Amino acid sequence: MAETFDFRVLAKDGKARCGEISTPRGVIRTPAFMPVGTVGTVKALYPEQVRDAGADIILGNTYHLMLRPGAERVAKLGGLHKFMGWNGPILTDSGGFQVMSLAKIRKITEEGAAFQSHLDGSRHMLSPERSIEIQSLLGADIQMQFDECIELPAAPSEVDRAMQLSLRWAERSKRAFEVQRASGGVGPGQALFAIVQGGTDIALRQRSAEALVAMDFPGYAIGGLAVGEGHEAMISTLAETLPALPADKPRYLMGVGTPLDLIESVRLGVDMFDCVMPTRNGRHGHAFTWDGELNMRNARFADDASPLDAQSSCPAARQYSRAYLHHLIKSGEYLGAMILSWANTVFYQDLMAAMREAISAGNFEEWAAATKARIIKPPAAPER
Amino acid sequence: MAETFDFRVLAKDGKARCGEISTPRGVIRTPAFMPVGTVGTVKALYPEQVRDAGADIILGNTYHLMLRPGAERVAKLGGLHKFMGWNGPILTDSGGFQVMSLAKIRKITEEGAAFQSHLDGSRHMLSPERSIEIQSLLGADIQMQFDECIELPAAPSEVDRAMQLSLRWAERSKRAFEVQRASGGVGPGQALFAIVQGGTDIALRQRSAEALVAMDFPGYAIGGLAVGEGHEAMISTLAETLPALPADKPRYLMGVGTPLDLIESVRLGVDMFDCVMPTRNGRHGHAFTWDGELNMRNARFADDASPLDAQSSCPAARQYSRAYLHHLIKSGEYLGAMILSWANTVFYQDLMAAMREAISAGNFEEWAAATKARIIKPPAAPER
Repeated sequence: MAETFDFRVLAKDGKARCGEISTPRGVIRTPAFMPVGTVGTVKALYPEQVRDAGADIILGNTYHLMLRPGAERVAKLGGLHKFMGWNGPILTDSGGFQVMSLAKIRKITEEGAAFQSHLDGSRHMLSPERSIEIQSLLGADIQMQFDECIELPAAPSEVDRAMQLSLRWAERSKRAFEVQRASGGVGPGQALFAIVQGGTDIALRQRSAEALVAMDFPGYAIGGLAVGEGHEAMISTLAETLPALPADKPRYLMGVGTPLDLIESVRLGVDMFDCVMPTRNGRHGHAFTWDGELNMRNARFADDASPLDAQSSCPAARQYSRAYLHHLIKSGEYLGAMILSWANTVFYQDLMAAMREAISAGNFEEWAAATKARIIKPPAAPER
Repeated sequence: MAETFDFRVLAKDGKARCGEISTPRGVIRTPAFMPVGTVGTVKALYPEQVRDAGADIILGNTYHLMLRPGAERVAKLGGLHKFMGWNGPILTDSGGFQVMSLAKIRKITEEGAAFQSHLDGSRHMLSPERSIEIQSLLGADIQMQFDECIELPAAPSEVDRAMQLSLRWAERSKRAFEVQRASGGVGPGQALFAIVQGGTDIALRQRSAEALVAMDFPGYAIGGLAVGEGHEAMISTLAETLPALPADKPRYLMGVGTPLDLIESVRLGVDMFDCVMPTRNGRHGHAFTWDGELNMRNARFADDASPLDAQSSCPAARQYSRAYLHHLIKSGEYLGAMILSWANTVFYQDLMAAMREAISAGNFEEWAAATKARIIKPPAAPER
């Protein structure tokens, strides 16, 4: 195992690239999709299933974990890896996004974000320093800078203000991370990534990217996308932003996305993703399959004896019939959510593996065209 | 595999006995505890986990399955075993108990029970003939006669009336089962059990047992207990009823129970049990362990790094800390219900295995005393 954090590009096909991030806790094959373990569990999955699906790294949420069970408690119990039984790398977000989307009342100042918990109304403060401290207590292999993520559409001046604030917070996050490193709060192989902000304003995005690159981070994320701007705007913003980031550092598109989002973003050179979609949609009865997306609540599946996805590498997707899954989901049974979350997680990992293979083989465009034709279908008959 | 249904007592220790029920789908080691797969899934468990826990047989609910997904649909899809991915024996109840406890409006006549679904208010009729037809469509290895199960306490005349009606329904169930057998609706190795009723009235219980034994069933259940009469009344009723049942047929105590209930009932000669307790209590954060019962919601577990149950044969019970399970249960996470349901199911199966071993070794009384001292503890400090 590497003692340091390292990224190597192994192959390129157009702008798409595949590579490896080395960390003391293991290698992350890129392009990588990180299943989301919000409060210390990838919902409805055993950690072994996540690992066996092919995930090299998962994501944990600073906002959720600081509120419950608490970062100091997790640290006392040996860190997040031990707590949740996941031995591979973990990336933690900084809490910035959830403060915006979940906290009841929040006030953003230069210092940070004061907010009330969505769970019990208790008052908390997240600053760059506290966010880095929490992520260090959790033991994250990759930490994220604290940033302000705003909803789109927003006034240009507001987008600019949040981006500038996020730059100042990036500096403070970096300093706080170096303090942690000096005191042994983080080890030599742990890393802090910056987050490019700027909404869909290309000039702001480029200014954000340039300023962050000047600070020299081991990885760069694109934040503040997939927050209401739509697929086309996201992809065009991405296309203009990525060239401003160094080619020898991993690029992480936060909170994305659909299979189409992933394919189009990898084509532009993105290396890492995270999204709740495979598990959240699974719990709601939505299946990603190699024959397109299926809503298992649809009555047309009630008598369908065929397996969920005969082409899946997930044992459950081949074993259980659509009729059974329809029944489980309609009945609100745990097993329905368990099987669909599992099958979707495997689908996402297999999609990433197929992209890595296509890039290595130099046929990404052909692969992408064929795969999109296969998995992106016009909507079926209206669902009952 | 046996082509016929057969029961052999292999060892006796006092009144306790261990043995084997042979069915075409496999051997059931007795005393046996059947996990409950209400609507075609043992809640929050994969079938492989149920099998690996040591369960030889599970139970399915006629009432639930007739309403959703429907018995004819399950039959068309290849039967309940195939539908839910369980290859071992399945026992189905007759629906009588759930009509009483769940249906919205019900009317009992000589013909059967007319009721409205608790799901959508739709109207249904369950008679002995329809119950047997449904159980045959599901493909149950052991069917149960249709009976009327009343809540206790009840007026003596009401207990008598329901017991007499259940006797007449036993005859009709048996006839309906023979019709199914003649038409190929059930195979040679499938069996129909009778159900002794009579509340806590010993004379009624004995009359019920004698009448049913005269009809000659391959197995006998004791129904209508654990419905509000309390542990002592249940055990004393059982003690007086069991001697009226033939020693060479399996005896099944329905809907029971706690670990103490199981130990005391096996001591009296019961061979089979079913109960939702391991899974239902697990979903609610209640753990059965070899160190006593634990309520994982209790704040004293928040910082407890010790495993749920170091003495368990369930991998998850040894792997995950009490602190983590406390967190998962408090957070309402699927994984909390999944792990506790799994660990409890393993605990129940291991308890049965230990009883079988103690009976074979001829030291059931010593084992029972030691085990009760170990797992039945005075309540801990008040739970927050």
